[in-house]
Parts: sequence; C-alpha cells; structure tokens
Amino acid sequence: MLIGKSFIGSERSGDGNVRYYGVNPAAKEQLETAYIQSTEEEISVATAKAVLAYEVYRYISGQKKADFLDVIADEILALGDALLERSSLESGLPLGRVTSERGRTIGQMRLFAQLLRTGEWVGARIDPAIPDRTPMPRVDLRSMERPVGPVGVFGASNFPLAFSVAGGDTASALAAGCPVIVKAHPAHPGTCELIASAIIKAAATTNMPEGVFSMIQGPSIDVGMALVSDPRIKAIGFTGSHRGGKAIFGAAAARSEPIPVYAEMGSTNPVFILPQALENRGDIIATGLAGSITMGVGQFCTNPGLVVRITDRNATSFDSQLSTALEGIAAGTMLTSDINAAYAKGIERLNSQSDVDSLLEREGSSADSGHPNLFATTVKSFCNTPDLEEEVFGPSSVIVRADNKEELLKVASQLSGHLTATLIGEESELVAYRDLIEILETKVGRLVINGYPTGVEVCHAMVHGGPYPATTDSRSTSVGTGAITRFTRPVCYQNFPDALLPDELKQDNPLGISRMVKE
Amino acid sequence: MLIGKSFIGSERSGDGNVRYYGVNPAAKEQLETAYIQSTEEEISVATAKAVLAYEVYRYISGQKKADFLDVIADEILALGDALLERSSLESGLPLGRVTSERGRTIGQMRLFAQLLRTGEWVGARIDPAIPDRTPMPRVDLRSMERPVGPVGVFGASNFPLAFSVAGGDTASALAAGCPVIVKAHPAHPGTCELIASAIIKAAATTNMPEGVFSMIQGPSIDVGMALVSDPRIKAIGFTGSHRGGKAIFGAAAARSEPIPVYAEMGSTNPVFILPQALENRGDIIATGLAGSITMGVGQFCTNPGLVVRITDRNATSFDSQLSTALEGIAAGTMLTSDINAAYAKGIERLNSQSDVDSLLEREGSSADSGHPNLFATTVKSFCNTPDLEEEVFGPSSVIVRADNKEELLKVASQLSGHLTATLIGEESELVAYRDLIEILETKVGRLVINGYPTGVEVCHAMVHGGPYPATTDSRSTSVGTGAITRFTRPVCYQNFPDALLPDELKQDNPLGISRMVKE
Repeated sequence: MLIGKSFIGSERSGDGNVRYYGVNPAAKEQLETAYIQSTEEEISVATAKAVLAYEVYRYISGQKKADFLDVIADEILALGDALLERSSLESGLPLGRVTSERGRTIGQMRLFAQLLRTGEWVGARIDPAIPDRTPMPRVDLRSMERPVGPVGVFGASNFPLAFSVAGGDTASALAAGCPVIVKAHPAHPGTCELIASAIIKAAATTNMPEGVFSMIQGPSIDVGMALVSDPRIKAIGFTGSHRGGKAIFGAAAARSEPIPVYAEMGSTNPVFILPQALENRGDIIATGLAGSITMGVGQFCTNPGLVVRITDRNATSFDSQLSTALEGIAAGTMLTSDINAAYAKGIERLNSQSDVDSLLEREGSSADSGHPNLFATTVKSFCNTPDLEEEVFGPSSVIVRADNKEELLKVASQLSGHLTATLIGEESELVAYRDLIEILETKVGRLVINGYPTGVEVCHAMVHGGPYPATTDSRSTSVGTGAITRFTRPVCYQNFPDALLPDELKQDNPLGISRMVKE
Repeated sequence: MLIGKSFIGSERSGDGNVRYYGVNPAAKEQLETAYIQSTEEEISVATAKAVLAYEVYRYISGQKKADFLDVIADEILALGDALLERSSLESGLPLGRVTSERGRTIGQMRLFAQLLRTGEWVGARIDPAIPDRTPMPRVDLRSMERPVGPVGVFGASNFPLAFSVAGGDTASALAAGCPVIVKAHPAHPGTCELIASAIIKAAATTNMPEGVFSMIQGPSIDVGMALVSDPRIKAIGFTGSHRGGKAIFGAAAARSEPIPVYAEMGSTNPVFILPQALENRGDIIATGLAGSITMGVGQFCTNPGLVVRITDRNATSFDSQLSTALEGIAAGTMLTSDINAAYAKGIERLNSQSDVDSLLEREGSSADSGHPNLFATTVKSFCNTPDLEEEVFGPSSVIVRADNKEELLKVASQLSGHLTATLIGEESELVAYRDLIEILETKVGRLVINGYPTGVEVCHAMVHGGPYPATTDSRSTSVGTGAITRFTRPVCYQNFPDALLPDELKQDNPLGISRMVKE
C-alpha cells in the first residue's frame, strides 16, 4: 500500500536517489518502505502545478471548497485502522491517543467546511458611492479577503495527524483558497503518505484542480529550503523547533520577495499558582499539573515547563506533592530517538545549573524513554539564567520559588513570548492579582485560569500563537477558524460593475452573508 | 513658536549637537528654526515612557481614546493658518492642497474615533463552555484583538499632514491602544513640530498618560534605526522609498525579537485602457489620465506610471492626445531638491533606454521643478527591462504598446506587486477582459475600474497596500479603518471569571457590540 513516492499533484513521483525509512521508536526498528527524497525538479513541478491550480481554485465557491474539506475528512476516516496503526507505529503514541487525534483532525476539516458554507469569514466591507458628496463625490468601494497563492506547510513531529499533512495549516490554507504543498515529516513518512492519498482522492472526487495539493518527502533541510525559497510560494506554515522556525523565517525574509512565515516554535507556558489556591487545594493542583506535564510524554508545545509559586507554609508540601505525583507516572516512549536524546541533553543542562535543584530521586532520563523530571530554582537564578526559560521538550518542569508577590511579578515581567500562561487561584485572590494578569496578557496568545495549558480546543475563539519566540508572527493563530486569514490579504474593488464583483460583494448579497456596509 | 526640540513624551528636549533646517523648495531658501537631532539617549527615554504609557493606555476605554483622537483633530484645526502656511512653505505644495490635506488628516482621526465608539473592531469571538460535552467538556473561550505595544512611525515626504505625524499610522496605532513614537520627516520639520504640539496638547486635555506620544527629530538614518532596533518597539509603520522601507524591514527581521514592519514603498500603478473605450472616449481618457499623472506634481504613491493599451487605429492618436495634454500642464515645484534631482535622474534613466521613446518635445526636466514626461516602449522591451516597472517619483508615465490582447495579458502577468491597477473600458468589453482582472487581482491591493488610481478614499473598505515590492506586508492597509489591526494581535481568555474579562467579552455584553458567538 505504501510506495514511498512523493505526490507531485496527483502524480506519484520518485526520481531521487536519496532514500530513508520510518522508524518504530518503541522497538527501535526501521520500518519497511523506502521513502525517496524529492528532487529540486520535483519540487519545482509541484509548485508550477500549484500556481496553475491557484488560477482555478481561488474562484471555486465556498460551498464546493467545503465539500472538498468534508470529503478529505471522509477519506481519512476511510483509511481505517491502517492509518491508526501506522501512526502509532511511527510515533510511539498509543492507539487511543492516535484515534482521538484523528477525531481532532477530521473535526477541524469539518469546522473549516462549516466556516466556508456560511461564507462570512471574508470580512466583506462596503462603502457605497455618494455621487452628490461635495467637494468630491465618493465612488463605490468594496473589499474582502482573497487567497495569497500557493502555501508551503511543514508539519510537526508531535501530532502526526492534527498538525501534519492534513493539519490545521493545510485545512486553513485550503479553506482560504490556496493550493498547498506539504513537506512530509520524516518522523512519520508512512502516515504522511496515507493522509496525502486521502487528500488526493478527495480532490479527485470533488473535481478540484490538479496541483491543489502536493506532498514532498525528505529529511534533508534542502528539501524544505527549496520550498521556502521558491518565488511561487506565497506563505509558509510551520510547527516545530525554534531552530527550524528561525531558519525558515530568515530564508523567507531574505527572498527577493519576502513572504509571511507562521512558525509555531513552542514555549514553556508558565503556570502561576496563587497562595490561597495552594492552601485550599495544593494536592489536587499537584496531581492535575503532573498530568499536564506528562501528557503525551510531555511532547506538547503547550506543556507547562515553568511553575511559579510563592514560598509559604504550603509551598514546600506542594513541591513534594508534585514530585511524588510525577514519580508515580511511568516513563514513555518518545517520538524519535533524536527527541529522546535532546530531552536527555535538556535535563543534563538543567542538572548542570548551579542554582537549580533536581527534585526527583531517580535518574533524570534514559536512552529508551522520557522519564518525568522536576527542578526548582530561585527567582534570582531564573532572572539571571535565560536558559531556564527555554523549552525542554518532554515531561519536565521547573518550579520557580518566589519569596513574595513582588518576586512573582518580577518573573512575569521578565518572561519573553509564550503560547500560554496559566493562573491557578481562588476567585477572590485572582482579582488581587489583576496586575499579574495584565503583565501576562502582553506575553502570550492564551491566558488560562484554573486549568492547564495542554489541550487546545479547535474552535473560533482559540488563539494558539503568541509573541516571539513562541511564534514568528503573533498576529494569528494556528488552531481554530481564525487561522484562515493567515493565507489571505484584503483586495479592494473600486467602482466595479456588479457582474465583475465576487459574489460576496455583489449588491444584492446573493450569499446572504453579514457585511460591514457604511452609507 | 517653533523651537526645534524633540517631544520626549510631553517634555521638550534638545540635548543633541547636530542641527538641521527646513527648506523652502520653491525659493530654495533655508527656513528659520534650527532643528536638533535627537540623541540615542532621548530616543531611549521616549521608548521607556511609551512602555509605561502602554501599561495604562491599553486599558483606557474606546470612548476615552475616541475623545483623545477627536481633540487631536480639534487641536490641529486650532493651529489655524500657521500650520497651513508652514506646510506649504516647507513642501512647496499650494495652500489649497495643504488645506484639503488637513481636512483629510482630521477626517481620518475622527473616523477612527467613530470606530472606537462603536467598539466592534476588536473582532470579539466567544465559544461558551459546554460542560456536558463528551468525552471532554469544553471550557469557555473568548478572544479579541489587543494592542501590541509601542509603535514607531515614519511619515512620508509627500503628505506633510495626512501621512506624517498625525497621519494614518499614528491614528490607527493610537486607536488600537498603542503609544506612538514618530520620527519627524526632515523635509517638513516645522509642520511636524506644530502637529506634535497639537497631539501633546490633546493628550493633556484628555488625561492620556505621559509618553503616549513622542516625536524625535533628525535627518540621520541612525535616528530611525535606533527606533527600529529598540527592543521595546513592537511594530513599525513607514511610508516612503523602497530603499528606506527595505532597510527598516531588514533591520526589524534581524532583531533578536523580529517585529512587523508595514512599509508602503510606492509603485507604478498600471492603467490598462481597453480598445472600445479608447475608440469611444480616447480624448477624455487622455485628459483625465494627464491630470492623474501630474496631480501634486506626480508625487503620489498611486501615480499612474504605466499605461498599457493595444495598438490599433485609435491608439496612435491617443498617445498624441496624452502627450498634448501633458504638454499643456505646467511644471511644478517638487517637495525637495533631492526629490527633484531623483526625478531628473529617473527621466535620464528612461531616456537612456534604447527601446524607450520620449514622446514630449521639450526638455525632460529641470533643476527647478518637475516637468511632465511621457515615454513609450514595446511589450518586448518592457518584459526584458525590469527597470521600466520601477517608480519614477514625479509627473511621468510610460506607455507600453501592446500589439494585441495576448501581449497586454503578458504585461499583466509579468507585473510585480503594486498598490493599484486600473482598467478603463466599456462595460461590455470589461466582461471580455475578465482574464485580465483575474491576473491583476493577484498583483495589487486595489483594482479600479473607469477611474484613476490617484485619490485614496479614507473609509472602511479601502485597501492601500499590495504585494511586495509595493509594501513589505500585503495583509493590511495603511489607509482606512482596516489599518487598526496592524497594531494588534489576538489574545484568548480561557475560563475567565466575568469580572476579569475585558468589557468587550463580558457575558452580558455591556458595550453592546456585535460578537461572533458559537454555542
């Protein structure tokens, strides 16, 4: 069933001579199927096809694009257990998790389909003509969002379905009217191939133009860079490491035509625990937080890697409770051996800091799997050691022990950009910590009260993003329907005959959408 | 009245030892008042004040921010003739033009004030909790746009009022809730000082926090770069040359925290004239186009610098009519001697192209003022000479003579990004040229039918922007209310107690704004 070739539009192509394999990280076994790295020529053909597809696809109605997305969801489901098994095998994630991730993946396709059916996302604005205005008449002006062109998508290792080939970036770009070229993630090439086949099948069933979707393969950085530097690519979506995101951002800014890069690069998602909550329910918080830290072996970009609390008579026992809770959670297989090694290195780095204590008794990590880890440090040390704010990708967290509220605010003020910040507190004390909320609001894309940062709802109000270095562009979200405007730009139509206007802007509003009309 | 010092917040400061002067470009005379270039220290103090102001200003209600903007408009009017005279003196623009530009400037302040009073611009989205959802309950999620922080603004030489100190970028940033630091344009320092004094006065009257507005002075590139590279500045608005915009964009991308740069760098705004229109009303089009080319001595970023038409029996007489119309228009004083010199150089560059004919009899330019110029070239030559698409800032245009529709489409396809593209045609032929419109839609921010690109309405549907190299960020507009989201990013509030939510997101909708609510 898997043949290891790229999808250059709907054509399978494997002209290259570099081969690589998927790996089962649990058994440390190379999986069958040799994957053929895409060549520059193949990437160029995919992009040329995307340009031709764009000419057609951008004028296809929202209803028809919605059908396309819905059929993608159907075809992913139709892959059945083969998809779930391959995803689990390649990622080390349990079948249950992969199954729920599939639900999330098809759910977000269907949500974007709904958005397209209502048609209101285009932000239609109309300033009708005022012919008798003095001294100058006003001409009719109408504007709406239009797709930017072919989009390159780089999926993440940690969500082989929901942030990969048919993930949020692909869903939002296709919904916006942009053809997509995905660079398959080398950590789960078989999963990528299966999903790509579902998208291509859906494109055929719903009569989408050839080239509306392509998928290229290859672990080499050159494959990705060929995509980013191709002048026909007009925007990039990326989820992954800071190093990868930064490199793509730099390459895109250096192009003769710079393009937007939406790189989500993870963060440490600070959790602030306020004194009364610690006193009233420290044990419950410790258990909940341990679950959030270790969920998915800590391999979430919203993993809480920093915990800040004020040292008082309850704080020491909270630290112990959190340690105990983490010690009770088994190590898990990490996504790849590289990620496992990076985790071990990150733990080593924390262990080597003079002012950082390791709170867990047993060894910090192993070559086989990700053990939970917990560290503690002082505010002074945290403020003097920028390293401590950096993400250690895995089930690890650092407690920052503040002496008082001032120190806690100092930590908040010093933070750089994160995806989320969380406050755990009783309602009365939350109001007294409004100053903390005001600081954190400038640092993150999402503020959570009395919850945990892991678990990112796919909905309309979600903001999965945040200031640099969490992302390269804080003005959007990579999860939820708000993502659709990543891949659009506004176009204004001045003094257009009605027949030449897009349906969304026609005078009698044939799509029946809500529009901003200012007489 | 003018003292030549910077506004570091509300304080006047002139610690530097570099001085420069405004110039009357008509009389070529240095004007009185020595302007003192701001020092690095002064810029740093302005930015520190802006950070402090941001903490307060971002929580000030839309109503109060609206009052601030309205009082800015009042204070600008209260400057009276002194402002008009100084602007005219420094820019060489006639009093009538400067008066109407003042109207535009205060009009856009008041339009943003209206936008703030309705409060709907924040894009509020609400996904209410679904506690009984299985397998997992949904928590309450709400999001809206929030201001990014202190913004740096670089005004343009060609609109000493409407795109300068109190121009669109300042209006939209202040409306968004961001403090603003303007770098005064050295071509009209006195105008800048007067307008800054009006803004500072309005800030005092309406109790805005110290530091909500500052203005620094100086012709050196170091002044601007100190602003762009200050880590406390979170976004940049710029209107000016390609070289300036590109340098700022590069510096912003290279910061340890990259920030958005909205640089509007001008374009040549191609005008396509279709055959029937040329036959039916070639003479009227020639007159109208000549007016658009020479309006404001051609010193508009929407100046039509390219005219494309199909050679037929009417085309030659149209070329002559356009030449004649341009010959009948007097030369005008340009904004600065540098701009005059650059214009002369641009004309020289066009004259030196082998395949480009000069259609006007008299000399191409003079050291004193900008004479209209008109050139003509072939499609082949246009396609082989990227230089011909570059802006020559001044009253000049190039006719591209297409042999047939295919050649005309070829020109359109080859275009890079522009602010506008215009089609002049009879209604019946416009439909037959839908393919041309479809190509141009991917190249520009605004498509004009049967009009001229000059004249940019300040309204809700305006898009004054477009793909690179017209701007560094095509996802927004620098004119009209859509500009407000340049200086914001979405923030999501998860599971917030109602009391801690911004008013825009509170359950009982105290501001009565329309919101996207999905049960």
